[in-house]
Amino acid sequence: MDQQLPHVVIIGAGFGGLTAAQSLKHAPVRITVIDRTNYHLFQPLLYQVAMAGLSPAEIAAPIRSVLRKQKNAAVLLAEATGIDFDEQTVNLRDEQHEEKLRFDYLVLAIGGRTSYFGHDDWEKFAPGLKDIDDAVEIRRRVLLAFEAAEKDYDPQRRRELLTFVVVGGGPTGVELAGAIAELARFVLARDFRTINPQSAEILLLEGGARILPSFPPDLSESAQHQLTELGVKVRTNAQVTNIDKNGVYLGDEMIRAATVIWGAGVRATAMTQSLGVELDRAGRVRVEPDLTIPGHRNAFAIGDMTLFLQDGKPLPGVSPVAMQMGRSVARNIQNDLAGKPYEHFRYFDKGNMATIGRKAAIAEIGKLHLSGFIAWLAWLGVHIFFLIGFRNRFAVLFNWAWSYFTYQRGARLITGRKMNLPS
Amino acid sequence: MDQQLPHVVIIGAGFGGLTAAQSLKHAPVRITVIDRTNYHLFQPLLYQVAMAGLSPAEIAAPIRSVLRKQKNAAVLLAEATGIDFDEQTVNLRDEQHEEKLRFDYLVLAIGGRTSYFGHDDWEKFAPGLKDIDDAVEIRRRVLLAFEAAEKDYDPQRRRELLTFVVVGGGPTGVELAGAIAELARFVLARDFRTINPQSAEILLLEGGARILPSFPPDLSESAQHQLTELGVKVRTNAQVTNIDKNGVYLGDEMIRAATVIWGAGVRATAMTQSLGVELDRAGRVRVEPDLTIPGHRNAFAIGDMTLFLQDGKPLPGVSPVAMQMGRSVARNIQNDLAGKPYEHFRYFDKGNMATIGRKAAIAEIGKLHLSGFIAWLAWLGVHIFFLIGFRNRFAVLFNWAWSYFTYQRGARLITGRKMNLPS
Repeated sequence: MDQQLPHVVIIGAGFGGLTAAQSLKHAPVRITVIDRTNYHLFQPLLYQVAMAGLSPAEIAAPIRSVLRKQKNAAVLLAEATGIDFDEQTVNLRDEQHEEKLRFDYLVLAIGGRTSYFGHDDWEKFAPGLKDIDDAVEIRRRVLLAFEAAEKDYDPQRRRELLTFVVVGGGPTGVELAGAIAELARFVLARDFRTINPQSAEILLLEGGARILPSFPPDLSESAQHQLTELGVKVRTNAQVTNIDKNGVYLGDEMIRAATVIWGAGVRATAMTQSLGVELDRAGRVRVEPDLTIPGHRNAFAIGDMTLFLQDGKPLPGVSPVAMQMGRSVARNIQNDLAGKPYEHFRYFDKGNMATIGRKAAIAEIGKLHLSGFIAWLAWLGVHIFFLIGFRNRFAVLFNWAWSYFTYQRGARLITGRKMNLPS
Repeated sequence: MDQQLPHVVIIGAGFGGLTAAQSLKHAPVRITVIDRTNYHLFQPLLYQVAMAGLSPAEIAAPIRSVLRKQKNAAVLLAEATGIDFDEQTVNLRDEQHEEKLRFDYLVLAIGGRTSYFGHDDWEKFAPGLKDIDDAVEIRRRVLLAFEAAEKDYDPQRRRELLTFVVVGGGPTGVELAGAIAELARFVLARDFRTINPQSAEILLLEGGARILPSFPPDLSESAQHQLTELGVKVRTNAQVTNIDKNGVYLGDEMIRAATVIWGAGVRATAMTQSLGVELDRAGRVRVEPDLTIPGHRNAFAIGDMTLFLQDGKPLPGVSPVAMQMGRSVARNIQNDLAGKPYEHFRYFDKGNMATIGRKAAIAEIGKLHLSGFIAWLAWLGVHIFFLIGFRNRFAVLFNWAWSYFTYQRGARLITGRKMNLPS
């Protein structure tokens, strides 16, 4: 790479950061993409890893492979710990070194993490789903609960082991609840001798009046109906007041459950606090209309770590928003290099969908409201189309076809050094 | 299951234990298979997981799925901690409980673990390859070494990061060394910007006079030649005297290397010491000719945890031995139930093969000595044929075909909570 070219440093290789890097392929810049992991994660299918439908490698692609042919881009495995806007440097850290990297343009795309709304002590009882390690941990807990139930002859304890509570009726919570129901009803159905996995109770708790509140009411209703068909009990207006090793508390009511999964909140990573700019309550950066960080004309922030109001409403934390932001930032960097002004960002909403299970989903595409099989087909098509890399696309399609026809799951491994059975 | 039937308890669901259980499918017994993990591992392909060629789920099948249709078999996820032969009970433990399980017949098939020949302190510097967690750890170390080298501009340190030492010239060591060479020369070749992965140095150290000493000399020589072609430096008569964080010591000589992998020794798990019977130096049980444990007529031991002399030579610790032993024990249990005497075990050797890389292998089938492409095809055919479960077989074949034509690897993920770059 030509060291004389302006240096674009992109932190985070999620949908936003990677799209920004790829959109600068032909720009007269050199690019460094920094990430804490060596892979780009196809987050919309992460719940499939948590439910043993897919292997981690099937929804992740090495960042180096994705950018192999883009000669103006380098990849560094490291963690960004801070930014010095005056010196135009990023502090990088790995286990061995700290170092500083100079930038001419900075793109922050570090994503979000699970938010427990101030109750971080709930995390160990109710893991969230943000990365592969989370997904493997949830897979482990769910599969171990069935294993422990098979060995436990105490009916009360067995009932607790076979009770699964998912907190949060957003897309993640709905996907997880539907997937647990399918696992229990179909995949594991005939694998045990002393328990009947189909007797498992799956509860989806939503604090608000309806699940999937970002969708129109008729689709929320359809989703709830489809979940009920699958055997999930949906409870709305259910405000969780505490979670501990015994289960979930809703005010005076207590639900005993060995497995609780958190699908409720997302907030920005702690790193945003070091930026010295105004943040919202979830720690997100209130970016300017051109996606720059207030007060810093050559530094942008995109994706889940940002708060961007469009027509008075915040944009949702979904991958199409992050990708469109990445493209806009790439255009603005090129505008700037050409002496042209920055464009303002505007999100073009192509539609919104949520999956519930096999042949069950909802989709809102403009004025069109779809649900059931047709929505699921649309969801499947879009997700396979956008999966990074031909190989993954093919492997995922094969795995889905396989489990569609056989109800087998390939990734039902309980891994990790310790044999932590649920307490 | 009919609780009146004689109870066969099988500990370990490796090749030996699983074969024993399956061979008792039509016997008038009830079977309990106990394992510390929930999956059966196809160990001969474990090195492919360590080298990012396959995902863990592709070489592992849930024990419950394998035995789903065998109605006289139940599966328990637990660890066996001891045997009381007088009371005919097994002590089981998980994180919560201890319990005793009564048996009428016992089959011990608990396999082996990595042996450092009395130097257990070497383990943290040079992990062995026995289970999926080992494989993921080795994958992590190898991939991280390349990542760290990309960031390190000190030539001496970069050389250490790009030096990979495999200790032990048996089948595991040969597979690992060949696979690292392929990873460096083909898979990663164009993915880095400041290093050339092809410049990595891969060393295979063998203490004896030739690698793969269980094969005839001409095949050892061919294997060494094939490894050299791949870029592996093979050193025989290389006695490792120490391993620490800086590298490997051969007497006065020191080889600086960030990544050392142990492919040398196998011994029985510590549990054999609690049996109160005679063990060999590797902790293996010297079983009777009918595979019973000396002094215990209804307790058998099979597979890697045993020492069995045939024609004066110990049988090797390979899956065909374990599987044939499993079948023999199943027949003997049925003989005993029918009032017939036990048969003596005799291993029928169908051949022996070791793989080196793409189109590179050796095979000894009776008097036939094969090497190169034809041996590799034989190896491929046998391994795909024996892979448990149609789905895995198909997924592995697809992955192999894919990486054969593209030199892409699908499972190049560095996972785990911490970003441990090599020191």
